[in-house]
Amino acid sequence: MTSAFSPRYGDHDAPATTLTSPAIDLMLSHRSVRGYRPDALPDGALEAIIAAAQSAATSSNLQTWSVIVVTDPAVKARCAELAGGQKHIEECPVFLLFLADLARLTRVASGEGLAHAGNDTLEMFLVAAIDAALAAQNACVAAESLGLSTVYIGAMRNKPEAVAELVGLPPATAVVFGLCIGFAAEGKEGSVKPRLPQEAVLHNGRYQLEAQDAAIARYNDAMAAFNERERASTTTPWTVHSARRVAGPESLSGRHVLMQVLRRMGFFKAE
Amino acid sequence: MTSAFSPRYGDHDAPATTLTSPAIDLMLSHRSVRGYRPDALPDGALEAIIAAAQSAATSSNLQTWSVIVVTDPAVKARCAELAGGQKHIEECPVFLLFLADLARLTRVASGEGLAHAGNDTLEMFLVAAIDAALAAQNACVAAESLGLSTVYIGAMRNKPEAVAELVGLPPATAVVFGLCIGFAAEGKEGSVKPRLPQEAVLHNGRYQLEAQDAAIARYNDAMAAFNERERASTTTPWTVHSARRVAGPESLSGRHVLMQVLRRMGFFKAE
Repeated sequence: MTSAFSPRYGDHDAPATTLTSPAIDLMLSHRSVRGYRPDALPDGALEAIIAAAQSAATSSNLQTWSVIVVTDPAVKARCAELAGGQKHIEECPVFLLFLADLARLTRVASGEGLAHAGNDTLEMFLVAAIDAALAAQNACVAAESLGLSTVYIGAMRNKPEAVAELVGLPPATAVVFGLCIGFAAEGKEGSVKPRLPQEAVLHNGRYQLEAQDAAIARYNDAMAAFNERERASTTTPWTVHSARRVAGPESLSGRHVLMQVLRRMGFFKAE
Repeated sequence: MTSAFSPRYGDHDAPATTLTSPAIDLMLSHRSVRGYRPDALPDGALEAIIAAAQSAATSSNLQTWSVIVVTDPAVKARCAELAGGQKHIEECPVFLLFLADLARLTRVASGEGLAHAGNDTLEMFLVAAIDAALAAQNACVAAESLGLSTVYIGAMRNKPEAVAELVGLPPATAVVFGLCIGFAAEGKEGSVKPRLPQEAVLHNGRYQLEAQDAAIARYNDAMAAFNERERASTTTPWTVHSARRVAGPESLSGRHVLMQVLRRMGFFKAE
């Protein structure tokens, strides 16, 4: 059976449901785009995207995130370089850097003459990173609802201190990822990529590890079919691709020292 | 000027844009709901919500998250207790536990006879937590697009090992937060809560800390007006409320030891 859900799972593993909504259809059609036209965003689009981002839930309404808008070609070029040479960062008209931001909360507490030692924990860094991610995902959906495309840039964590210096970050703030926003270049619109069957990701009441094996094997097939259809250069199975990504410290593009780096940047000093 | 953006910022600080979309309007109308009717979700809603969640971006397509669906009243009651007595967890028909999940990836690598030492870093825990958050925010938007309501439960991090035992988590998985889903009970629909003015959160090219003070002061006023309109029990300014939340280790509901706890659960063993 083919449904709105099929491209996301391949024909064999789409859920049987037909219940959907315009918002769900929009999310199902998400593609990460790595090639942009130079055209600027429509007037007011950035403000609308940020309003959607701020509308996401935030832990205890603390709003421990911020975003830097990068439009300066030289700064985008440096970001592209720090991310290991990702040309789409230079191409997109708006590059957003999402921050875990405990600096505002520390300043707010200091301004009231109150203590803020809780900020010096991994928990508060995690609160801030999750706040940033929830906001960013709303931004992503908002952008796509306006006909724009996006791609997350995790590689902004390759050299977090260099990025911090580039955009003037104070202690207790760090870029957790970037987000390119713009109009997809012709031929760069991409295709909906299949994900793991729901039975691998969705657990009823208790976590099941071994039971995922069959779904993972089918997913290798679905990804092989996708790569062939897309004429992708890779023929590596998803399982092997994924394992290589975490083979060892050297496969993490410098991010294996993130704990020390974030400590130097003012996070979790109490731990 | 009153616009679709006004309830999110209060009349004085709404952005001047009028550009919007149905998806943006949906996100702008988000409210966290803490009271649910017992009614089950519509047929197929959970599968559609999870499909939306899986459609969010995921770092290098590694899909390092999972979700446990909790519907058993006894398990929900225990979750409510572990979260410090949050009655809405018992009330909602579907309680989702979002996991940072490196266990699947470790098993995948082992199955291929490949190394996976990269999983033992803070970076990979963060990748997994961000993956889970991006997925969860799509789930949240999807649920609301179907007329359902939600609330995130960060307090599932108060006692992560007890939660792990309750739902049978293997090493290198942890609940990063919960999400209640259901139909809002009458009178519990809530109101759109104002957020900080965009000028406090959105930085043009470089981060500005001191320049946020004026916007934060106006936000204290906006939240005071909101609390009065909502007849909220609190008259504490947002700045003071927020500072108290991070005053010290004792204000974090047990989460000040999260780094040690996550180490015991199999994360960032290399650091």
